[in-house]
Amino acid sequence: MSELERIERIRRRVPSIRDSRLVLGIGDDCAILRPPGATDDWLVSTDLLVEAVHFLPDTHAPSDIGHKALARGLSDIAAMGGEAKFCLISLALPDCVEDEWLDMFYEGVNRLGSETGTLLIGGDMAGAAQIVCDVVVCGSVPRDSAMRRDQARPGDAVYVSGSLGGSALGLESRTGDSWDRHLRPQPHLELGIFLRKTLGVRAAMDLSDGLSIDLLRFATESGVEIAIDQPPPCFPGASREQSLHGGEDYELVFTLSSRITVPSEAASVPLTRIGEVREGEAGRVTFLGELLQPGGWDHFRK
Amino acid sequence: MSELERIERIRRRVPSIRDSRLVLGIGDDCAILRPPGATDDWLVSTDLLVEAVHFLPDTHAPSDIGHKALARGLSDIAAMGGEAKFCLISLALPDCVEDEWLDMFYEGVNRLGSETGTLLIGGDMAGAAQIVCDVVVCGSVPRDSAMRRDQARPGDAVYVSGSLGGSALGLESRTGDSWDRHLRPQPHLELGIFLRKTLGVRAAMDLSDGLSIDLLRFATESGVEIAIDQPPPCFPGASREQSLHGGEDYELVFTLSSRITVPSEAASVPLTRIGEVREGEAGRVTFLGELLQPGGWDHFRK
Repeated sequence: MSELERIERIRRRVPSIRDSRLVLGIGDDCAILRPPGATDDWLVSTDLLVEAVHFLPDTHAPSDIGHKALARGLSDIAAMGGEAKFCLISLALPDCVEDEWLDMFYEGVNRLGSETGTLLIGGDMAGAAQIVCDVVVCGSVPRDSAMRRDQARPGDAVYVSGSLGGSALGLESRTGDSWDRHLRPQPHLELGIFLRKTLGVRAAMDLSDGLSIDLLRFATESGVEIAIDQPPPCFPGASREQSLHGGEDYELVFTLSSRITVPSEAASVPLTRIGEVREGEAGRVTFLGELLQPGGWDHFRK
Repeated sequence: MSELERIERIRRRVPSIRDSRLVLGIGDDCAILRPPGATDDWLVSTDLLVEAVHFLPDTHAPSDIGHKALARGLSDIAAMGGEAKFCLISLALPDCVEDEWLDMFYEGVNRLGSETGTLLIGGDMAGAAQIVCDVVVCGSVPRDSAMRRDQARPGDAVYVSGSLGGSALGLESRTGDSWDRHLRPQPHLELGIFLRKTLGVRAAMDLSDGLSIDLLRFATESGVEIAIDQPPPCFPGASREQSLHGGEDYELVFTLSSRITVPSEAASVPLTRIGEVREGEAGRVTFLGELLQPGGWDHFRK
């Protein structure tokens, strides 16, 4: 089974308890909670970062690993238009990891935390054969306004922030701007808030595994078809293939009624129209008229 | 450095941002959040469960692993007197793990979830060399009433729930009631609520790593000395050593003014007075007048 199928299988088996404190459970970038009496909805997400899967200790400095671990979680908050507040970090570590590694790891976490107003408030530690880090991020968003994967509607235009394929190119080249983008992705928190608040966007997600597989998820959750009618903006030097299927760009993709004018840039990030949402087969994604097979990262594809 | 020293080092490096939405950060069983406007405080904890450290795939059925993963998190909520609400599970898995393993794992999670009113609302998955599971649990507690590690006061008596050493004995014997206790620990949620609500307990924690090391943490956080003046109740067949240092019993330890009468049982769990809180060297723990060296589990002791 693929990762997508596994998650769907888990979701189907969860007992269907109705709870007014829960707005949204499994399947989006964050779960959405509604604490009784609270003015805001609260967002919670959890993201794994695994040695030899998401990073290599030889090429990734511990401060970059800390940065990336937190950035992945913050990008989930950005995708929903939330404000980041707190994080907890669970860290499974081999014996050989030195105290200095740990200091630098948390330096990376705390630096990005300070930049984004995200405070480290807890976690856990354990021994393990390889480094496995799980980051929990909590954020908030005004009630009923979180951007979600299940809100894309036929007639919406599809937009992407920034440019794609940079992280995949960096992983290949290990040099220059693309390597920097791979090592230290920037979560688009300010942009997420702009989209939600100023443009009134209701449907968005972040690109963590690759445009093709992430759009498939978006289209599936919304029960729509997505037609990409022009090549997405490529990171300088990245191939078409990398821009369509490369993971870890952490750009935002969103949809919005085509009647609304979207600026060409917001929060210093370019915004580009790449296609449209259509009625049709739920989860179907096309690129220039052809079916786009998901080619992004799947942890369990054999 | 020991686990305790590492956590202290991480805590010291967190930027000191004051935030009215945060009641308590690093250092207790859960972090305590106060969403603006909310009637309750919210508890968040995260706990790792690692193959070959916390369980062995040969002897632990996947449903027991799922049970234990969630039980550890729920025990943190119980320790603060909270009501459990939601959980998220991050699971790093080797390729060889079958879909059936996953089904049984989540069966264990969902069964304990149903028993305790805890709904699975999210998570993450990734590949890895060994199974690493991180469980996030969210719960709630009336404002300002969470039981905490830093609230033990000189003059309090010290109590423990149930009996100790059962899990350590089970790990050794792999048979009978003690093995059951090791495989499927029961989080004392009902007891935690009774202690907070009916007895007015303010200082408590759960015993996850062993009485000796956990009391050291309790005494350190409260800035007090703890004198155990009688042997804690032993799980049938467990040795004195196992009851003092064995981990994973998930019993609750709490302190309360010695003027208040504590029943001998609550929520079907025996409660036993084992000692008292004294002014003195912060973090010092004695057993029958002698210094009690921490002998419980430490992930990073060399």
